Amino acid sequence: MSSRWLVRPAHVRERAGELPGGFRAAGVAAGVKASGAADVGLLVCDAADAVSAARFTRSGMLAAPVLVCKHEARLDALRAVAVNAGNANAATGAPGLADARAMQRAAAELAGVEAAQVAVASTGVIGVALPIERVLAGLRDASGALASDGAADFSAAIRTTDKYAKEIAVDVELPAGRVRLTAQAKGAGMISPAFATMLCFVQTDAALAPETADLLLGVCVKRSFDRISVDGQLSTNDTAILIASGAAGVRVAPQSEDELRLGEALDWALRTLALAIVRDGEGAARVARLVVRGADERVAAQAARAVANSPLVKAALHGGDPNWGRIAQAVGGALYDAPLAPDIWIEGVQVCAAGAAVAHDAAALARAVAGDEVEYVVALGDAAAAEAEVFFSDLSHEYVTINADYTT
Amino acid sequence: MSSRWLVRPAHVRERAGELPGGFRAAGVAAGVKASGAADVGLLVCDAADAVSAARFTRSGMLAAPVLVCKHEARLDALRAVAVNAGNANAATGAPGLADARAMQRAAAELAGVEAAQVAVASTGVIGVALPIERVLAGLRDASGALASDGAADFSAAIRTTDKYAKEIAVDVELPAGRVRLTAQAKGAGMISPAFATMLCFVQTDAALAPETADLLLGVCVKRSFDRISVDGQLSTNDTAILIASGAAGVRVAPQSEDELRLGEALDWALRTLALAIVRDGEGAARVARLVVRGADERVAAQAARAVANSPLVKAALHGGDPNWGRIAQAVGGALYDAPLAPDIWIEGVQVCAAGAAVAHDAAALARAVAGDEVEYVVALGDAAAAEAEVFFSDLSHEYVTINADYTT
Repeated sequence: MSSRWLVRPAHVRERAGELPGGFRAAGVAAGVKASGAADVGLLVCDAADAVSAARFTRSGMLAAPVLVCKHEARLDALRAVAVNAGNANAATGAPGLADARAMQRAAAELAGVEAAQVAVASTGVIGVALPIERVLAGLRDASGALASDGAADFSAAIRTTDKYAKEIAVDVELPAGRVRLTAQAKGAGMISPAFATMLCFVQTDAALAPETADLLLGVCVKRSFDRISVDGQLSTNDTAILIASGAAGVRVAPQSEDELRLGEALDWALRTLALAIVRDGEGAARVARLVVRGADERVAAQAARAVANSPLVKAALHGGDPNWGRIAQAVGGALYDAPLAPDIWIEGVQVCAAGAAVAHDAAALARAVAGDEVEYVVALGDAAAAEAEVFFSDLSHEYVTINADYTT
Repeated sequence: MSSRWLVRPAHVRERAGELPGGFRAAGVAAGVKASGAADVGLLVCDAADAVSAARFTRSGMLAAPVLVCKHEARLDALRAVAVNAGNANAATGAPGLADARAMQRAAAELAGVEAAQVAVASTGVIGVALPIERVLAGLRDASGALASDGAADFSAAIRTTDKYAKEIAVDVELPAGRVRLTAQAKGAGMISPAFATMLCFVQTDAALAPETADLLLGVCVKRSFDRISVDGQLSTNDTAILIASGAAGVRVAPQSEDELRLGEALDWALRTLALAIVRDGEGAARVARLVVRGADERVAAQAARAVANSPLVKAALHGGDPNWGRIAQAVGGALYDAPLAPDIWIEGVQVCAAGAAVAHDAAALARAVAGDEVEYVVALGDAAAAEAEVFFSDLSHEYVTINADYTT
């Protein structure tokens, strides 16, 4: 996964995928997916004083596992994650909540921790009862297979429409010493309620205070998973969890150089996984980065999301069509009832100044947007004090094919 | 254009397309469209005391003709409309404003009215200079061709990607007497900034006070053009104009039975044209009606727009897939940060109650959604005091094809 938009910090080195000290994981096929592929994963942290942080979807329709995590788990002291793919356990009512609690209890017993120390997550079809006996049997199997090199199996068990696994394993050199960081993500976008959901699990052997874990995860999620769009559809199940075992014996103090360096590493890791999700977006052939500069971040983000979610902009991206009128239209539609006069650049070429067309070499621009990655910049006015960045995929025939006929 | 969702009031009768008394129109080919099709239209009202009302797009990127109408026209006393297709005159800066003013002045001279009594409208590609000399020559030609049976030519001249003309001509029986109502609309959706824009022009020979014209147009636009989506993209050029000549000698007093009856006729006419626009949406194969019931209209409308604009819901509509999880997901994404427990019906079959799946005959439901029209109802809670209705088209491969490569 290389991109001109991702620069790995010099103190971060990729390495083979073994989990950081204190972690074991496994993934097994339990028959939740009709395909017979791996679909139940278990991650355990053996450190009694593990520290954690979590973020969840803001949807008004929260899946049962998200409700259980938010209301019945100690999110700052998690020691295990139980996850299944193939069924989202969403819009499943009271039976769904009972199933999510059963997953949590079973994983707690298997890991030898309290139920409140287990997070649960699910991804797959909405509105269908979870085959809980299969999931519980899968957790028992996974428990027997837990290993420090189990990240790949765990990662496989959380995939749905993902074409490839999304994993990161790095060493991070901090002033206080070397720590490890691994992460596994899934998602073919923040997209289909029936098929895809963004999940991300991060492990480190650094020793963190709960406030540090929460701060680092919060800031980095905002700059990564919160800034991508395949189709602008908020999922019922999105979950991101960071667990720190402390096994490396390297303490990261608040507001220290260590915290800054670890934050840079986590930022790079989550942005890399987020861009991998966009690149694997359903039907995606091209990806774009959009930067909107405006007077404040809220307005810039509102415009950026509107452009990233516009089917017209996405179709033009797909076709390699440098039709900047669609960007102007999307910005105008997002920030309505007040006149706008934006500047717009595509691949560094200014095409619009103060709301009006700028003469440019159209043939050269058409060549510039024919690559895998296209960059757009929009400036909303002179007072460009804030900026918002979004990565998004294109809208293709394959997206329509994938989504026109799923449940029937 | 027939639909189970459109019931023509008994006092409204369709008839041949001659304009109401006091109106003349024409449409000509002036070379703005590369195809050589009709592209410049002129509509004139010969009544010196004509009364009018207008509504425009709320985009922050207003096209030059919209700016001229809003700031330099007497919108309650319009007597002519000059329109071109093939070029939106949007994002064209000061030269574009000068062109729109030149259209307005030329039409005023040709019609023998003041410039401020002329509305101008354009539709077509964004960010390209209007070929003003061609437009002005077209207006001169159209002026020579003005006729009371010119509605069809005028209607042809405002089309872009429209597969068919969108026209209404009816007699309306009011207690005070018979009046005529005609309307011409264009749009393959509220969609492409590059290609399509919603325009609608309405003529009646009833005698209306300006306040009555404004009230009737405002209410009926809210229930028609403001409640449709092809792809949720607000145009830079949307314009709706009602002109009343008074030539029938039938005065419609405020808050009278006449006003109510005329309103019902206008409501039916604009909803018919709006549904015709959705049915002609770029790539559209199926259309849907969605009703959301909620505690207040703002919340209901927010959820309704989110469902109507969801590419997942639209793709499922296209594929005849009764995947209600996508509706639940879209509602949850629109109304986030607070728990929801919606009821959902598809074609009268309840599939979700209080946020959880309801057992139903899936095969029967699959057959029910295989038709041209599909109806969804969402109830957000017990206090369903308000409701919002939206008509929308599906998302097809053809939409991607149309929009992936337009300007290049």
